[in-house]
Amino acid sequence: MLGIDDGKFIPRTQGTVIAVGVVFRGGYSIEGVMHTNIAIDGLDATEKFAAMINTSPHHKQLRLVMLNGITFAGFNIVDIKRLYASTCLPVLALTHDKPDMDAVCEALKNLPNSEERRRLVVEAGEIHEVINNGAKIYLELAGLSLTDAQKIIRLTSIRSCLPEPLRVAHLIASGISP
Amino acid sequence: MLGIDDGKFIPRTQGTVIAVGVVFRGGYSIEGVMHTNIAIDGLDATEKFAAMINTSPHHKQLRLVMLNGITFAGFNIVDIKRLYASTCLPVLALTHDKPDMDAVCEALKNLPNSEERRRLVVEAGEIHEVINNGAKIYLELAGLSLTDAQKIIRLTSIRSCLPEPLRVAHLIASGISP
Repeated sequence: MLGIDDGKFIPRTQGTVIAVGVVFRGGYSIEGVMHTNIAIDGLDATEKFAAMINTSPHHKQLRLVMLNGITFAGFNIVDIKRLYASTCLPVLALTHDKPDMDAVCEALKNLPNSEERRRLVVEAGEIHEVINNGAKIYLELAGLSLTDAQKIIRLTSIRSCLPEPLRVAHLIASGISP
Repeated sequence: MLGIDDGKFIPRTQGTVIAVGVVFRGGYSIEGVMHTNIAIDGLDATEKFAAMINTSPHHKQLRLVMLNGITFAGFNIVDIKRLYASTCLPVLALTHDKPDMDAVCEALKNLPNSEERRRLVVEAGEIHEVINNGAKIYLELAGLSLTDAQKIIRLTSIRSCLPEPLRVAHLIASGISP
């Protein structure tokens, strides 16, 4: 499976941020690393992630994509259903913090294409609250059931309440950020 | 322990290359990632690695530095004794391929500061050939014995004939290279 997280950046600036994808076999073994660059507060995360995945030599061995939430590089929101359709891989977006929809919608007002962004937030579907290793986490799903998602999360959360692909993608993306 | 490897670059160009350090606890758990930038065919790898290590929040938990050989970014050669002295951490440089000293010395002739570079290659000391998981590997050591080095390599080589910190540092550094 693949875990994706983005690097550090200065909010509300222009430019791009690196997003790192880490290929894991089960919860233990790192098999590869890939990257792409997405625009801060842009609208290109879905297509950039899809291209990164589809052109990767690891594509054939992947069975699932895990995202650290659906918003990257500020408010560059991933259309998880479109990412599922274009990669043929189920998408599991997972966060530690409860998504604050009111705050998100308020922030979107100040951005171009706010209608489009709001649509992506809504179309990501239901936010499922589940308990993992004693901590609350929040899931949005495309292409897999909540039961399967919970099974996968349980099997891959070895060192923390986050699955290893996401924990390690976060360490790498922040560790290589300027 | 920390494993360091450098990213991809076009040989004999100007500029810098990213070098990635991966903090491992034993052979399994990634605890952190750090990076620095070193000059292609430069002479700054030793001081850049030392600064990266000494300023890292992980410095106190580190017990050893593993390098993918002693040459990075072309012919930017690490002074492993000076790296040991300035970080207070033993240094284990390890390669898959037998260092071809004649070829290295020949190549150094075409570079500035070739005497200084030749001195670094010589002062890295004896190259130990050992067998690890059935494959030959080559070690240069500063601050630890060959017996201890072999013990550490055996314990941390879980997925290949390379210790996990070096295998993963290589995957990350090449996966995030342009």
